[in-house]
Amino acid sequence: MTDTLPHDAGLWRGVESGADDEEFLGLLRAGTALVEPVLREAVGRLHVSLASVCRYHLGWDGAPSVAGTGKRVRPVLALLSVRSAGAPERFAAVAGTAVELVHQLSLLHDDIMDGDTERRGRPTAWAHFGTGAAVLTGDALVVQAVATIFHARAPGASAATEELIGAVEQMVAGQAEDLALEHRSAHEVSVPRYVGMARGKTGALFGCAAALGAVLAEASPPVVRALRAAGSDLGVAFQILDDVLGLWGDGALTGKPVGTDLVRGKKTLPLVLAAGSDTADGRRLAALLGPAPLPPALVPEVMGLLDATRSRERAEEVAARHVASAMAALDAAELPTDVRQQWHSLIGGLSQRRS
Amino acid sequence: MTDTLPHDAGLWRGVESGADDEEFLGLLRAGTALVEPVLREAVGRLHVSLASVCRYHLGWDGAPSVAGTGKRVRPVLALLSVRSAGAPERFAAVAGTAVELVHQLSLLHDDIMDGDTERRGRPTAWAHFGTGAAVLTGDALVVQAVATIFHARAPGASAATEELIGAVEQMVAGQAEDLALEHRSAHEVSVPRYVGMARGKTGALFGCAAALGAVLAEASPPVVRALRAAGSDLGVAFQILDDVLGLWGDGALTGKPVGTDLVRGKKTLPLVLAAGSDTADGRRLAALLGPAPLPPALVPEVMGLLDATRSRERAEEVAARHVASAMAALDAAELPTDVRQQWHSLIGGLSQRRS
Repeated sequence: MTDTLPHDAGLWRGVESGADDEEFLGLLRAGTALVEPVLREAVGRLHVSLASVCRYHLGWDGAPSVAGTGKRVRPVLALLSVRSAGAPERFAAVAGTAVELVHQLSLLHDDIMDGDTERRGRPTAWAHFGTGAAVLTGDALVVQAVATIFHARAPGASAATEELIGAVEQMVAGQAEDLALEHRSAHEVSVPRYVGMARGKTGALFGCAAALGAVLAEASPPVVRALRAAGSDLGVAFQILDDVLGLWGDGALTGKPVGTDLVRGKKTLPLVLAAGSDTADGRRLAALLGPAPLPPALVPEVMGLLDATRSRERAEEVAARHVASAMAALDAAELPTDVRQQWHSLIGGLSQRRS
Repeated sequence: MTDTLPHDAGLWRGVESGADDEEFLGLLRAGTALVEPVLREAVGRLHVSLASVCRYHLGWDGAPSVAGTGKRVRPVLALLSVRSAGAPERFAAVAGTAVELVHQLSLLHDDIMDGDTERRGRPTAWAHFGTGAAVLTGDALVVQAVATIFHARAPGASAATEELIGAVEQMVAGQAEDLALEHRSAHEVSVPRYVGMARGKTGALFGCAAALGAVLAEASPPVVRALRAAGSDLGVAFQILDDVLGLWGDGALTGKPVGTDLVRGKKTLPLVLAAGSDTADGRRLAALLGPAPLPPALVPEVMGLLDATRSRERAEEVAARHVASAMAALDAAELPTDVRQQWHSLIGGLSQRRS
């Protein structure tokens, strides 16, 4: 669920890039600017000791992190959701804050679950403040997220609460599935099972973010459905590219040493594709990888087999199919022309992230 | 937040006991029977791996625990809340399940925060399944709690959702305050600050449980306020008696070695009262206790000073005042006579628990 996408415009077929860079950066800035005050209000409502943990985790306090405060990708989805419905932008501040709070909860708790001691070049919150403080801060954030959307002054506040609750349920189930798959052999995990996991772990909150602003505004059900479906597919693609970056990305940019996922037994899509491929290399890989964690000494051999089975390219093809599906859903929906263009810019811009 | 109350009828002044024992046990059985099916449905909605953690934690699976599945105190409050409003008992099943799910989240995550490896004579969930699984199961439970009340088919479902969200916010803040006080010297903590902490940590969910059924039924605001206030005061008393039991209770019954709270630096009410008393013993205690954890070798000396300052009796007096306040709120409220009697039985019965 980290905000990392590789530099490879070819991944996002059909999405023009370059010309839209300025528009993309403008969207990121607008999303961040919109949610920041509401996010700070929500953090300000926490017990002072939890607010400290949160301010550090968000990069507002403490030593500067190598990658600033992180991108606010989900709030931008919420912003475009609101614009898709022609609704007031204050709805985006509320919807964007709610999904960002859930995302930050997931990062706080995932770092504990994965035992990660660093994020963006600084100690993770649990490593800095202790596990207890980080667990409790996450609990506080999920409650604030629900409270933020529940108390929204918008006609669709109740439906939006339902949307958010459902997304968090799916996200938690997806995370549970991700943990469960760590104990399965890669060749036992099918691509549909992987996609189902990614659709929960990352797609649910992306889909919620893309739909939530429109739900708050009581937009038409077909528009809401299209936005939710597009966001969900985009989330699956985002997760796949995160997998790719974890294997072939620049560890200095991602803040995550290459091979971490392999050693941990994460069933990333490239691994699933390679171990499931009916080739000598695939069978060799499946034999190397048991349900137990991979000894670090075997990482180079596994990487060689991943390359030999073209698993990076094949994973990127699966991501591209999900992006195409997201684009198709948006193109088929009744959206204002300028907003449709902004969706294109957002998807194109995300494709150029390397961290 | 453990369900432990000492055997000392004198604690609950003005509450007759003995004759009501049968009624009390009947209430406990009725509360458990009402929530069990809805609780099992909620657990059944979780990812299979989280459902396993939950079933173990709830005592449904695994080796029998020394104290069964635990008492369902909060669901009984929800049951009497519904009866206070003359509403259908199916509202109690929903309200009781929601508060019980929140309570179970708090136990799961508190065990992690406190590093407790045993609960009811068995390994705690995190000790058995790992920290990550226990963190994630707690996240799933809080979302299920909100979903359960949000989707209740009752006229006051929306108001009840607000009530529950507010209670969880206060509970988390109270837990944060409890952790923060571990790092303060006992003589720096005032009784009002302690009570504020207990009102959040334990009182908020008790108050919510006592109000929630009536809120679902859209009972009159004065009745809801009286029930919430009574539950909150009862929760404070419950927490104080939990403190007392942790110091002077039977470790074999409570499942918690006597002195654990002292060594951990917990600012229990007896400690706060003793360290703040303007006596030679009080000053000696305050000097012994710094903000750091207490060396186990000093536990006997501290216990002696707690006895010398009559801190148990004084803590029980504070608890009794909160019980009296709860009773006064209930007596002033417009309740059916038989339901008022059931509240008396519940409070009387709880006073006889020793674990």
